Amino acid sequence: MIDLYWPGDDRAGEHFDQESFVRALVGVEEAWLARLGHPADLQALVEPHHLEWLSQEAELGGNPVIGLVELLRDGLTGEAARWLHRGLTSQDVLDSALMRLAEGAVADLRADLSRLGTALVALAVAHRDTPMVGRTITQHAVPTTFGLRVAQWLAALVDADEQLAALALPGQVGGAAGTRAAMVELGVDVELEPVPWHTVRTPVTRLGDALVTTTDALARVANDVLVMSRPEIGELAEGRPGGSSTMPGKANPVLSVLVRRAALTTPQLAATLHVAAASQVDDRADGGWHAEWATLRDLVRRTLTAASQSVELVGGLQVHADQMAATLASAEEAVHAEQRAMIKLTGRDPLPSYDGQAGEIVDTVVLRARRHWRTA
Amino acid sequence: MIDLYWPGDDRAGEHFDQESFVRALVGVEEAWLARLGHPADLQALVEPHHLEWLSQEAELGGNPVIGLVELLRDGLTGEAARWLHRGLTSQDVLDSALMRLAEGAVADLRADLSRLGTALVALAVAHRDTPMVGRTITQHAVPTTFGLRVAQWLAALVDADEQLAALALPGQVGGAAGTRAAMVELGVDVELEPVPWHTVRTPVTRLGDALVTTTDALARVANDVLVMSRPEIGELAEGRPGGSSTMPGKANPVLSVLVRRAALTTPQLAATLHVAAASQVDDRADGGWHAEWATLRDLVRRTLTAASQSVELVGGLQVHADQMAATLASAEEAVHAEQRAMIKLTGRDPLPSYDGQAGEIVDTVVLRARRHWRTA
Amino acid sequence: MIDLYWPGDDRAGEHFDQESFVRALVGVEEAWLARLGHPADLQALVEPHHLEWLSQEAELGGNPVIGLVELLRDGLTGEAARWLHRGLTSQDVLDSALMRLAEGAVADLRADLSRLGTALVALAVAHRDTPMVGRTITQHAVPTTFGLRVAQWLAALVDADEQLAALALPGQVGGAAGTRAAMVELGVDVELEPVPWHTVRTPVTRLGDALVTTTDALARVANDVLVMSRPEIGELAEGRPGGSSTMPGKANPVLSVLVRRAALTTPQLAATLHVAAASQVDDRADGGWHAEWATLRDLVRRTLTAASQSVELVGGLQVHADQMAATLASAEEAVHAEQRAMIKLTGRDPLPSYDGQAGEIVDTVVLRARRHWRTA
Amino acid sequence: MIDLYWPGDDRAGEHFDQESFVRALVGVEEAWLARLGHPADLQALVEPHHLEWLSQEAELGGNPVIGLVELLRDGLTGEAARWLHRGLTSQDVLDSALMRLAEGAVADLRADLSRLGTALVALAVAHRDTPMVGRTITQHAVPTTFGLRVAQWLAALVDADEQLAALALPGQVGGAAGTRAAMVELGVDVELEPVPWHTVRTPVTRLGDALVTTTDALARVANDVLVMSRPEIGELAEGRPGGSSTMPGKANPVLSVLVRRAALTTPQLAATLHVAAASQVDDRADGGWHAEWATLRDLVRRTLTAASQSVELVGGLQVHADQMAATLASAEEAVHAEQRAMIKLTGRDPLPSYDGQAGEIVDTVVLRARRHWRTA
Repeated sequence: MIDLYWPGDDRAGEHFDQESFVRALVGVEEAWLARLGHPADLQALVEPHHLEWLSQEAELGGNPVIGLVELLRDGLTGEAARWLHRGLTSQDVLDSALMRLAEGAVADLRADLSRLGTALVALAVAHRDTPMVGRTITQHAVPTTFGLRVAQWLAALVDADEQLAALALPGQVGGAAGTRAAMVELGVDVELEPVPWHTVRTPVTRLGDALVTTTDALARVANDVLVMSRPEIGELAEGRPGGSSTMPGKANPVLSVLVRRAALTTPQLAATLHVAAASQVDDRADGGWHAEWATLRDLVRRTLTAASQSVELVGGLQVHADQMAATLASAEEAVHAEQRAMIKLTGRDPLPSYDGQAGEIVDTVVLRARRHWRTA
Repeated sequence: MIDLYWPGDDRAGEHFDQESFVRALVGVEEAWLARLGHPADLQALVEPHHLEWLSQEAELGGNPVIGLVELLRDGLTGEAARWLHRGLTSQDVLDSALMRLAEGAVADLRADLSRLGTALVALAVAHRDTPMVGRTITQHAVPTTFGLRVAQWLAALVDADEQLAALALPGQVGGAAGTRAAMVELGVDVELEPVPWHTVRTPVTRLGDALVTTTDALARVANDVLVMSRPEIGELAEGRPGGSSTMPGKANPVLSVLVRRAALTTPQLAATLHVAAASQVDDRADGGWHAEWATLRDLVRRTLTAASQSVELVGGLQVHADQMAATLASAEEAVHAEQRAMIKLTGRDPLPSYDGQAGEIVDTVVLRARRHWRTA
Repeated sequence: MIDLYWPGDDRAGEHFDQESFVRALVGVEEAWLARLGHPADLQALVEPHHLEWLSQEAELGGNPVIGLVELLRDGLTGEAARWLHRGLTSQDVLDSALMRLAEGAVADLRADLSRLGTALVALAVAHRDTPMVGRTITQHAVPTTFGLRVAQWLAALVDADEQLAALALPGQVGGAAGTRAAMVELGVDVELEPVPWHTVRTPVTRLGDALVTTTDALARVANDVLVMSRPEIGELAEGRPGGSSTMPGKANPVLSVLVRRAALTTPQLAATLHVAAASQVDDRADGGWHAEWATLRDLVRRTLTAASQSVELVGGLQVHADQMAATLASAEEAVHAEQRAMIKLTGRDPLPSYDGQAGEIVDTVVLRARRHWRTA
Repeated sequence: MIDLYWPGDDRAGEHFDQESFVRALVGVEEAWLARLGHPADLQALVEPHHLEWLSQEAELGGNPVIGLVELLRDGLTGEAARWLHRGLTSQDVLDSALMRLAEGAVADLRADLSRLGTALVALAVAHRDTPMVGRTITQHAVPTTFGLRVAQWLAALVDADEQLAALALPGQVGGAAGTRAAMVELGVDVELEPVPWHTVRTPVTRLGDALVTTTDALARVANDVLVMSRPEIGELAEGRPGGSSTMPGKANPVLSVLVRRAALTTPQLAATLHVAAASQVDDRADGGWHAEWATLRDLVRRTLTAASQSVELVGGLQVHADQMAATLASAEEAVHAEQRAMIKLTGRDPLPSYDGQAGEIVDTVVLRARRHWRTA
């Protein structure tokens, strides 16, 4: 899958691409057919040249399942042909397929976040005591450490990964209107839980919210790299900056730009999932459901791409501790104004350093991250 | 607080209003001052006529804390005046205050959701076996029950309340740049956790996401009432419909309209919190933080209002089971087409009813709701 | 281009697909090279198998132009190779290409809107005096005509098309930082206007706003069809409804559903263009620009698809005037309550009909539409 | 009106506040009553203590007009009481009032934008030739001028103001279901145009889009000030920076922060207006209309506030041309890499300066701005 409108999109691999979608839809039908007692290999029945026909049928039926069932049935004979899809409705198949795809995508995403977490832990530990000027509302504040900054990145990441880890991605088995009437009529034994969620879209909105929380966390890193790699600051640099089409020697923080880009778009995509959820009505809705599919696909692929880019970004990050020290030194007078005020208050001698609990906070976040990812 | 632009807003009471905001800000300063060993009653120091000055100072400083500290200090003498606010930064006070306000608001919101849940449980149980036509993609589908529909409303509500229940609403104690340097300098003993989250806005975005998930769930109910109270359908009606300024006898489903209204606006508000989170940078950000306050206030008040309106809506809901039966009867032929197809498949006699697991699903959701709210 | 996640997407044809994008980018380079006095046929230099490499380079450089220039230069010799792209920056090429693509897409979109307008004019005229019950806040109001309803659809459509017609889609010629320094150095004569707009994104946001205004208008129609084709109302029906995967005989208003779906997603996409515009900074921005491309692509294709679907929807629309009359008759008592109140006020006999200016409003809107599209 | 959640909100004055809203609603009724031939002074009939009752009635009726009409009628006698509001529906009054309020707000907004434009023209002219390093993708690019940067700000502003100038803010006169039946029954002569737009919300969405385009333009300035006033860059500074609650001597670019804040929230508010427009249905909608009022209010007030803050920001802006020159000098080698490449191509001597058309572009934009605002 190539998307020149979204450089880096190929990092998301086959997740949620057209073929994976069809494969997941067929997989759901296959599993159901087996459950009905008529196992058959269905994947081979759909060939690449069918995609165009499926696409046309998808519009005629409003979703790609109706045509797919027809295609599969045409390729089957006997009992398998007769029993295919019986008891299900198209939304059962599509929702279950999306959740299967999401399961795989979230697993890969979390693997990348784990890599990123490990890299950030190492970075935070390495720079636990690297002095740096604090910056608030764009201006120099009090001294801090680069390790503490990294710990903030890390904390945001653990928050996001906790949300991803807590997701439930249930299958959908409801039948025509969520009563499972056809299944009961057919004598199929269906577990009660999870109950049908045709019009209760929390599994989808929670997934969306966790994904946007992830890009929030990734942008947190990228934004700092973008500021701190400005030539006048020069405290960070990307390991493999991008060039220019006209200026020789230009070194652009391309990975940070692309991660930040993602985070400018995902909040609105997650909002669309909520707008869709808030327009649910009847036993199966008239548009709210249909608005989810591409939106979820884009959210997932963009988050996967941004996570992978972030792994590379942090892995190659150049930390110029000397420049951090120089900036801090040049700001010495201003950044100790608060300490002087405090000393006046206590009447005591100033502490030798003014970095407070910076080190302990780093330790605390690192410990939390290590526990979260069970790494040493 | 009166807002004619948002009818029903007064249901949100004093939550997040101007006075509550100031009270919460002062409360944070008060608690901190006590922790520094100089307890003093600060609330009385801010009088209504100070609001205008505070408002002007809020713009000069970029937030309302700087002026507030000056005001409080002016009203104090001795050690309390000297120690007020020492160690904190304005964001510590403001974030902590917002979380305090959120805590109260979420508590009240959850109380209303509990009431709503109880009402929905009763409604689902009462109509567990009330036959109704299923509606999918706006058209008649297979038979269902009104109880099952209510169970779907209930499931969405429990999902939302679980998210609210899981929220962490931490205080913020970080100091000028999140290092707690002034606190250490002052010898104040501060617990390490929660670590400062000046630029890690997950507590805020999670709150926003839970609130919008709540309005999604409430709109789920309202949308159905709006459809089913159309005169041509007539299966539901609001207990206290609204009138018209020109048409005598008009009966508008006003509560449903107002709940649906809220849900059209909250997804975008929650997205704003993510846009703000994704623009975090440095040790304290240059606008992303400031964009949160009013957005969160609106999200909270609208959700509170919609929840309260929903309690009233469901409490007064008129269920016309006879009309549901009549609609179903008139659609008899069409809604049993699927059953006929299934019988052809099994070769067996049709089951006497074609409502599948509808009753059991109701029981399952009701049980889940009762456990969630520990009601009998 | 096939997208099973967005049924109907193929209606957007090649607009903004990968190949069109590359062709447009190459076209911009070609036009510039000719302007530099070294015309060459560049389109043949990019072959399908290059796409993957371009995609990888697009990420390395942050946009697809840098790799493309390298590829084209490799395929050229002599002066053309030396002069290719000289004076431009990658954003010049990409922005110009997007505007070229937009020009073609808007032209096709407007052609469909013109078809739709013609159909709506005919429908409004045909049903200028077809009585129907008015519906406000979901409830029966006073009598109206179906023609007036169609006139409202039409008015929204003309509004949208006026916005599309007013769009300026300028090329971008700014050079590395918007100064055109390299062009001047090379002695290339460049018109001053349009001035470079690297960080002034009004051409993009206006395009987005016009597109979402278009889907707003299309949804206006779809929403009414969805309500009025409910079986209990039965006043409208799609000409070619979709079926179900499990319920024989089901007739779903699929086109309306798919149009409505689009309109649930486009407001957030247009908002993303504004979020991107609002994050513009420096002489060329660090993410805000990059967030536009895919967002614009999706906005354009979804609007094209929805417009084409709407043409088919309106073209095949079944209008059940008898059912409209029947509904109105059954509501007779209620819908004349207002008239009775007015008579009481005037003391005069009631006018024979109570449809006010409905006919004249239809005429007015039809006239406006005809003038707009210069049709008779 | 004081809003500590939105520092600076008082700059929006009484625009769209509660009292103005009531006054505008009453004004619409007053004008209509006069048109019916029964002029009466209605403003005095609503007193501050009525607000609470109106607020309660607003929820009961779904909008504030129904209660207001009752209140006004109670205060009248004779013909005026009998004829008040006759022919109108509540939406006529509310929409007309919002448009009246918008008219006043847009006028004040445009006055501020004109002031801002004048200041930017002066700044662009003054710094037409002030050398500065160009910055693209955060990195040093080629030389530019500060005047050209200001010209970009100015161009964005003129674009926005052109959109505001082109707005139509029509009154709404449709009656119960948009047919004007009651008016005709009453013998009131009503112009056909503008035709009723109860469910065609282009006047509202265009207003929203113009407002967000305005904050996009204002953020364009603020973002640059935020970057260029970073201490490591130091090329710009706010004239009246804000302080810190804990750090003596801190100078925060508060106005820029607050302007940027607005622009992070308005895109989503404008999107809400489109979501609402896209949910229009029937002859008057069931929630889409109601979602607009507060959203529009917030959009208007935030844009007014941001514009006023921007006037102050630009009026007080400190331009450190010496620092600009110093940065450029220090980057000399890198920023002329492109020029060296061009010289190699032409074989000619380099031009003495490498700022291309920077000056001419400034002149062009300044001329456009002067024509737009007809200033010399």
